[in-house]
Amino acid sequence: VLRGNGETSFVPFQHGIPAVDKFPFDMWTKLYAKVFHSPRRDILGYGDPAGHYPLREAIAAHLRSARGVNCDVSQIIITNGAQQAFDLAGRVLLEPGAPVWVEDPCHAGAKNSFELSGAKLVPVAVDDEGFDITAALAKNGPARMIYVTPSHQFPLGMTMGLSRRLSLLEWAKNNEAWIIEDDYDSEFRYAGRPLASLQGLDKDNRVIYVGTFSKTIYPALRVGCLVVPKDMVKVFTAARALSGGNSPSIDQAVLAEFIDEGHFARHVRRMRRLYQERQALLFTEIERHLSGRLGVEKMDAGMHLVGMLAKGFKADIIVQKAAEVGVKVSTVSSYKLTGPSDNRLLLGYAGINEKQIKEGVKKLARVFDNYSK
Amino acid sequence: VLRGNGETSFVPFQHGIPAVDKFPFDMWTKLYAKVFHSPRRDILGYGDPAGHYPLREAIAAHLRSARGVNCDVSQIIITNGAQQAFDLAGRVLLEPGAPVWVEDPCHAGAKNSFELSGAKLVPVAVDDEGFDITAALAKNGPARMIYVTPSHQFPLGMTMGLSRRLSLLEWAKNNEAWIIEDDYDSEFRYAGRPLASLQGLDKDNRVIYVGTFSKTIYPALRVGCLVVPKDMVKVFTAARALSGGNSPSIDQAVLAEFIDEGHFARHVRRMRRLYQERQALLFTEIERHLSGRLGVEKMDAGMHLVGMLAKGFKADIIVQKAAEVGVKVSTVSSYKLTGPSDNRLLLGYAGINEKQIKEGVKKLARVFDNYSK
Repeated sequence: VLRGNGETSFVPFQHGIPAVDKFPFDMWTKLYAKVFHSPRRDILGYGDPAGHYPLREAIAAHLRSARGVNCDVSQIIITNGAQQAFDLAGRVLLEPGAPVWVEDPCHAGAKNSFELSGAKLVPVAVDDEGFDITAALAKNGPARMIYVTPSHQFPLGMTMGLSRRLSLLEWAKNNEAWIIEDDYDSEFRYAGRPLASLQGLDKDNRVIYVGTFSKTIYPALRVGCLVVPKDMVKVFTAARALSGGNSPSIDQAVLAEFIDEGHFARHVRRMRRLYQERQALLFTEIERHLSGRLGVEKMDAGMHLVGMLAKGFKADIIVQKAAEVGVKVSTVSSYKLTGPSDNRLLLGYAGINEKQIKEGVKKLARVFDNYSK
Repeated sequence: VLRGNGETSFVPFQHGIPAVDKFPFDMWTKLYAKVFHSPRRDILGYGDPAGHYPLREAIAAHLRSARGVNCDVSQIIITNGAQQAFDLAGRVLLEPGAPVWVEDPCHAGAKNSFELSGAKLVPVAVDDEGFDITAALAKNGPARMIYVTPSHQFPLGMTMGLSRRLSLLEWAKNNEAWIIEDDYDSEFRYAGRPLASLQGLDKDNRVIYVGTFSKTIYPALRVGCLVVPKDMVKVFTAARALSGGNSPSIDQAVLAEFIDEGHFARHVRRMRRLYQERQALLFTEIERHLSGRLGVEKMDAGMHLVGMLAKGFKADIIVQKAAEVGVKVSTVSSYKLTGPSDNRLLLGYAGINEKQIKEGVKKLARVFDNYSK
C-alpha cells in the first residue's frame, strides 16, 4: 500500500483496508467544525504526549467494556497507529540483542519495529490454536518479549484458547518477560463467542496491550493506543514525547466526541454486518469460480480470507499474474520468517464492494485458467 | 506546556507558543470539509510514510523560495513535528556512543532525542554569533553530528554569519559529519536581512534540514519536515514507516491546499506584523516597569525576548515567585548543559494579547518589588 508517489489504490483483494468510503464523513466533519470553530487553546498548543485526556477516557471505557481490558485512563497512551505502539514498546522494553519471540507467520510492521530496536527475532510457528508457549519452550532459549495476536492471529485468523492464554501469562510472570498483545482486528467478529483480551487476564502487569483505529475508522487517521502497566506509564510517555510528541489534538478531540456520542459503536456495528456480507459473497464466488483450485474456509472474524492453492499452482506466480490484471493477492509466505514455502493466499474483502468482489474473482479465475499458458 | 491532565494554559510569558487564536479557523475548516467530503481513497488508506505528495511539493516550493533550500520534492519527508525529525535523524545517523555537538544553551527536545539514540552529547557554548566551529575544534574531540540553529539561535536569538557557516560546512565535508539545521523560527524576522538556510550553501550533502509548522500554524497540528540528501531518502522513509507510519493524511492534504492557495503566506505575514507589535509592546512595558532590574534588548526575529536580571535577583527565584502570580518565565539556565549559572530569562510574547502583556509585566514588576520580602 506504500507508494512512492503517494498513490494508494483499493484493488481487490488487498487486505487490511476497511471500507473507507462507508465512513460517516458528514458527521465527522460536523464534529470537526464544532471542535475547531471554538477551539479551546488547550488543544492547539503542545499537548500531553500521552494523548488528549478526553480521548484517553473514551478509549479506556471502550476497552474495559468491549475487550475486558483491565485499565484506567492513566494507562492509556495514544500513538500514531499501532505501528508506533510497537516501536515505543521496543524502544522502552528491549535492550540490544534481546530475544523477542514472534508468531510465524507474523505482521511485518511489528517484527520489523522490534528489530529496529535491536531485538533478536525468534520465529515460533503457530498451530491451529495460534501461539503455544509450551511448544515454544521446548525449542527455544529465553525470551525477553513475546508478540502475539490472540484474538485473531495475523494473518491466519485462529483464536488463542483460554488454557494457552493462562500458560503464557504464567510463564511471563515467572520469567519477567513482556507480552505484546496486538488486538488489531477484534471488533470484526462474526461468529463464536468473542474472547476478552489477554490483558484482562493478566494479574502480574506483564501484558502491553496494543489497539488501533486504523481498521475501525480509517488508516490515515493514524490513531492507535497502548495500555501499559501503571509503573510503566512515565517511561512510555517520555519516549512518546521524544519520538515526536502527541498526535494531532484536533483529530483526537473529534475522535473522543465520535466515541462518546455513540457514532463509533454504530459505525463498527454497520461495518461488522457489511464485512460479514462481503466475506460471504467472496466465499461463494470463490466456491463458484475457483472450486478445486483455491480452497477457502469461512472465518469467524477479520477482514480477509485465507485460500489454499491446489497442487500445481504456485502462490508467487498467482500473485504476479493477478497483479497484471489489476488483482492484488498476498502470500502467507511473505509473512513467514522461516519454514517450508507456504501455498496459501490472503484475500481481503472489507474495503471493496460487491461488484469489485465478483469481478475480482472472475479475473482471478482467468488467471488460474491461463496458469500454464 | 506538557501537563498530565491534558490542560495547557497560555499564560504570559510562556515562550514558543504562537497566537493560535488568530489562526483562520473558518478557512481551514472549509478546506477540511472540501478535502474530506469527497475523500479520495488514496488519502484514507495507509499513506506514503514520506508524506502526502502534494504537501511535499508545496513544502519543497516554499523552502526553495523562502529559505533558499536546495531540494526537490523527493527529499522532503513529513514528520510529526520537528521533534520526530530530530528523532529520526538520531536513529538513522547515529551509532551508540556517537559524539554529537550541541549548542549550549540548546533546545531540550532535540538534544534529548539524540541522547535517546545513544549519542554522547558534547555541549559547545555559543557566543555573540552563535555556534563557532573554530572555537569548538580547539576544545573538543571528533563529532559525528552537530546540531545548530543558524537562523536564530535557540534560545538566545543570534544569527550565524556567513563565514562561520562556510567554515562549518567545510569542516563537515572534510570529516564526513552531519549537520542538523533546525530552522525553527525563520519565518518571523522583523529586521535585518534574512539569511538563507545553511542547507542552501551545502554542496556536499552534509546538512539535514528540519522545519516545522508548529509556530506558523499551531503546535497541535504536529507537522514538521525533514529535507535530506537524495541518497538518504530511502533509509529515512523506512525509519519513518517503522516508527509510526505517515502523519494523518487529511491534515496533510488540508495543509497542502492552505499553502497552495496562499493562505499560509498571508497568515505568516499577518503574524509577523502582530508579533512585531507584541514584541515592541513587551519591550516598552518592561522598560517602563522593570528598568534597572530586567535589561532587555530588541530582537530581530522570533517569539520571545531575553532579559538580563540585575545583580541581586536570582533567576530561579523570580521564576518561582512569578509562577505564584500566574506568570510563566523561563531561565536560560534551564536550557544550558554546562557552565556557570546564567541570570537571563526568556519572555514569550507571540501567543498573548496586549492586555495580557501589560498585566503580565505589572505582575512581574510586583514580583521584583516584593523580591526580598
